[in-house]
Amino acid sequence: MIPFEIDDSALFADRVGKAGLDAAAFGRGLAAHGASLDRVRALRDEGTLPLLALPGRRDDLPALEALAARMRRKTRDVLVLGTGGSSLGGQTLYALADQGFGPPKGIPRIHFLDNIDPATFAALADRIDFAKARILAISKSGGTAETLMQLLTLLPRLGKAVDAMGVAERLVVITEPADNPLRRLGTRLGATILDHDPRVGGRFSVLSLVGLLPAFIAGLDGARVRAGARSVLDAALGAERPEDCAPLRGAALNLAHAEGGRGTTVLMPYADRLAHFGLWFRQLWAESLGKDGKGTTPIRAMGTVDQHSQLQLYLAGPADKIFTLVTLAAAGKGDRAPATFARDPALAYLKGRRMGDLLDAEQRATGETLVRNGRPTRIFHLERLDERAMGALFMHFMLETIFAADLLGIDAFDQPAVEEGKKLARTYLADG
Amino acid sequence: MIPFEIDDSALFADRVGKAGLDAAAFGRGLAAHGASLDRVRALRDEGTLPLLALPGRRDDLPALEALAARMRRKTRDVLVLGTGGSSLGGQTLYALADQGFGPPKGIPRIHFLDNIDPATFAALADRIDFAKARILAISKSGGTAETLMQLLTLLPRLGKAVDAMGVAERLVVITEPADNPLRRLGTRLGATILDHDPRVGGRFSVLSLVGLLPAFIAGLDGARVRAGARSVLDAALGAERPEDCAPLRGAALNLAHAEGGRGTTVLMPYADRLAHFGLWFRQLWAESLGKDGKGTTPIRAMGTVDQHSQLQLYLAGPADKIFTLVTLAAAGKGDRAPATFARDPALAYLKGRRMGDLLDAEQRATGETLVRNGRPTRIFHLERLDERAMGALFMHFMLETIFAADLLGIDAFDQPAVEEGKKLARTYLADG
Repeated sequence: MIPFEIDDSALFADRVGKAGLDAAAFGRGLAAHGASLDRVRALRDEGTLPLLALPGRRDDLPALEALAARMRRKTRDVLVLGTGGSSLGGQTLYALADQGFGPPKGIPRIHFLDNIDPATFAALADRIDFAKARILAISKSGGTAETLMQLLTLLPRLGKAVDAMGVAERLVVITEPADNPLRRLGTRLGATILDHDPRVGGRFSVLSLVGLLPAFIAGLDGARVRAGARSVLDAALGAERPEDCAPLRGAALNLAHAEGGRGTTVLMPYADRLAHFGLWFRQLWAESLGKDGKGTTPIRAMGTVDQHSQLQLYLAGPADKIFTLVTLAAAGKGDRAPATFARDPALAYLKGRRMGDLLDAEQRATGETLVRNGRPTRIFHLERLDERAMGALFMHFMLETIFAADLLGIDAFDQPAVEEGKKLARTYLADG
Repeated sequence: MIPFEIDDSALFADRVGKAGLDAAAFGRGLAAHGASLDRVRALRDEGTLPLLALPGRRDDLPALEALAARMRRKTRDVLVLGTGGSSLGGQTLYALADQGFGPPKGIPRIHFLDNIDPATFAALADRIDFAKARILAISKSGGTAETLMQLLTLLPRLGKAVDAMGVAERLVVITEPADNPLRRLGTRLGATILDHDPRVGGRFSVLSLVGLLPAFIAGLDGARVRAGARSVLDAALGAERPEDCAPLRGAALNLAHAEGGRGTTVLMPYADRLAHFGLWFRQLWAESLGKDGKGTTPIRAMGTVDQHSQLQLYLAGPADKIFTLVTLAAAGKGDRAPATFARDPALAYLKGRRMGDLLDAEQRATGETLVRNGRPTRIFHLERLDERAMGALFMHFMLETIFAADLLGIDAFDQPAVEEGKKLARTYLADG
């Protein structure tokens, strides 16, 4: 069973008026997208898109789990070096174990270092006991300048804390099998080196070891992440007709709204643990579709926080956006507002209520208010947030992105525009 | 002296081609905005906009500093309850003291709780020793449901750790002088209650005690924040002509690009400590201008992280955005990539270089690449990032927002659209 329900009725004109789609016309268009469904189905059936095989795999998990257990041993901190797709999936899963106040007992704290701010590095490195730390360096190509610089600057600190054998024991590298600088460096140091499937792009790699090794280190169940993904994949690609394929429908809805001038798509989860999921989605969508002047602009908002920041703009600013709220059953959860402190009549609406009751009321109210203000809105509703749910969300949005690219006629899997800047940075560095 | 330099030359056609503005036409338009400059100047001179008096004030600082010292005593954690404008300014300043790995010695860790996720609250509350904690509850109106719920659910935990006198000693409230639920609750509990100036809106309150009390608790110098703000304010409102008023020029540039179809404005700092500044700006801009179908959509990106996430879209997606990079002098900073580990010829470009050298090369390269791809880009460059710089950035962007509202003919200081959702949430809570 898919662990979420989608309500996209408020993307249509009968709910939101002129910014909504005509349901009949959209339905006809969607029904004509059978070829798109066939093409993505073929990517799985013919094995040409290995990420679609990952949800069904179990063979690689025992070794990952064993490595994770080894990496947890006598370890206080794990530094994950990597950026973009090498980091965001792991961060998203890790948020299930650590909500920013530290991991559960017996689990090391994982620090995802995805930037090269020297001030951040100094602040971190001064607090790490490298004798009780592990480093996991992830770069698909093995040539990511930031990740290499991170590793190179941390190695002397690690080398001061432990001997060469200790360095080898404490360093794990994930990179492509092909010869590359990161692989050569890891090999020289005697690190454990794991293969990044060259046919799984970074932003599509969360279901591979790139996302699952950090998850296992954090004590999470990687098999359940994959099982959640599989529930979505099987339903989507098992659909008889395009209308029954939820990610294809989602892609077509996004593109129809973009054609109508609503080319900004706001993803707004109502759970702090989905904050990183929003950033993961934002990379996936932007980098896969932002090509040839096409694509739409993803924005990550957070409920309820951004009700006090962005909602005014969303309700009353330019009508150029659509909204996807991700809500989580919250009623009845959390501490109660005790009657003794809430005797004030002005607090009667909170008295005896739990924090989750308020969150639940607010997420429903925001969805309804967006609709009343004519803003196209769909809702993903989760009954619980766990590994399965996260895996299902990952797969839905990866498929929605792949279908959107297919409908736009662009390659979802490359990112040609960013190469120029990388080259220029090297030139500046050489000249500087 | 203003602690940053602005280069907006790449917002014009001679640098970025057809997405750029015609310099002569823009100059004529800007020169005609004298009335706008006069109106904002009058807001300060006549005292009708008290936030413009804050940069020059010192009289309120000694009491704040003394309270902060008291709140630091025997304190391990400070929980700041508040959302939107009651939180983002303090978070931005606190980032100068704590980059996410904990505060300096002798400084308590400040947790800014701006959401009502019961899972987050449980994770936090289980880790806090309330006998060594302080609570600072901030709500201008005193009626913010989230903040009240946060406080109500924490009070029993605090009450278990200390007696009634201890509760009184550990609770500080910032709210308007007018009678309101938060003020009444704080009074009943014997809390220290500080007045929020009712004429300073939440998102414009960072230079008041709302931003500065957390800053003082963190050991920062609030006077220097104000001094930085003053440097910008004096230069802007002391300008003889609109052309010489940097925030007015910035506002006009934003609006001219929005008229040209570039209604998304990306703020992309290249310093982790400015991550919260980006969120602060995002509220300021969105909530002040998003009215009557007007306004532009702010996006917070982070360098270099988002080069691996959003840059592909920025360079090759729809040409509907302008970019403001905030760069910080980084060359020569941070650890060096040691020659011994970087012997590989493929790593020659990093050998002996410092992490800051790479950051510096990348921020320059990204700016240049945006321009080469015809994307309008301006750069704020800082030589150092400290309280003065932060104060200056705050004031520049508050003024730019106020001028933009003036040019659009809208009220920068209200947020009428969000009231409907607040009422609906209360109805749902009552019915639920």
